[in-house]
Amino acid sequence: MEYTTNYLKMSRVELLERVQMQMGERRFKHVLGVEEMAIALAGRYEADIEAASIAALTHDYAKERDRDEMQELIRKEGFDLDLLNYGSEIWHGPVGAFLVQKELGVQDDLILDAIRKHTVGASEMTLLDKIIYVADFIEPNRDFPGVAEAREIAIRNLDEAVAFETKHTLHYLIEKNTKIYPQTIATYNTWVAKS
Amino acid sequence: MEYTTNYLKMSRVELLERVQMQMGERRFKHVLGVEEMAIALAGRYEADIEAASIAALTHDYAKERDRDEMQELIRKEGFDLDLLNYGSEIWHGPVGAFLVQKELGVQDDLILDAIRKHTVGASEMTLLDKIIYVADFIEPNRDFPGVAEAREIAIRNLDEAVAFETKHTLHYLIEKNTKIYPQTIATYNTWVAKS
Repeated sequence: MEYTTNYLKMSRVELLERVQMQMGERRFKHVLGVEEMAIALAGRYEADIEAASIAALTHDYAKERDRDEMQELIRKEGFDLDLLNYGSEIWHGPVGAFLVQKELGVQDDLILDAIRKHTVGASEMTLLDKIIYVADFIEPNRDFPGVAEAREIAIRNLDEAVAFETKHTLHYLIEKNTKIYPQTIATYNTWVAKS
Repeated sequence: MEYTTNYLKMSRVELLERVQMQMGERRFKHVLGVEEMAIALAGRYEADIEAASIAALTHDYAKERDRDEMQELIRKEGFDLDLLNYGSEIWHGPVGAFLVQKELGVQDDLILDAIRKHTVGASEMTLLDKIIYVADFIEPNRDFPGVAEAREIAIRNLDEAVAFETKHTLHYLIEKNTKIYPQTIATYNTWVAKS
């Protein structure tokens, strides 16, 4: 695919190189899977294909950044300091959006928001937010009990896929006694809870 | 049991009558079960037996109050208005503490806190808070998969029982697509999560 829009001042091939430099082979493969799935979902739900491609390719841009560097950015760049009370797993969304803007020059808020929200979701989610959140969960390399059902749901109804993923993730975190970032519950209360 | 302390200006028998007037038969039976269990746990963990009895007998004091009356109290008496975004199931803890103070004259903060926190727990929980939270979950009339294990854990380690109950409740709420009050996650993050 050749980008024809103004979201980025580089070609997709250049972007792939820049992203690949940020991570190991396994994660890069995951990123390509997320792009494939995000483009498919963008087609299905009539979203902007290029925005989906760029958000997918950059969603884990900060995931392998040094923990101390991320911590420093959170302290210095006006992030919610409550992030520091949770694992670095939570940080790479907001920190990633910041770095993708700064280092890759992406200025589009819809793309940056989708990166920001991809790990924990949010009460307010745009179509692109949902596509990246769901594509990250069901991309072709994912293999866990329930992924086939998640893929079926994603093709049928994107909001239901957001709900399914959120429930699944919460059950998983609770089973592993892992801390839950409060925004995950805001996502759950909006997209899952009926009353 | 005859109360010998100053927590209440009435006998246990009078308190039983006042509590019974607030609820149906089934719930009153539950309340008596919670008292029995709370006294047992107070004995096991060397807590104040009378405080445990009073907190247990009054923990559901507001549970069958009219929804509109509770809503009005929340609005007028300075409660956290975010309560109104969640089900009335959540309200009877804080509203109950308020009414138990106002109508029954209980002034002891440890008792009132235990009533306040019994549904969702809290990051900070006193010994009495934990006893009422756990007793409510495992009292003899309770019958659900896992209750036997919860009772065993409660005898062995009260903090573990708080954690077990919190996990169980969260799984249950998520399975039923029920809204989760944010404080439940604070309880989980403190008493369950390891990292």
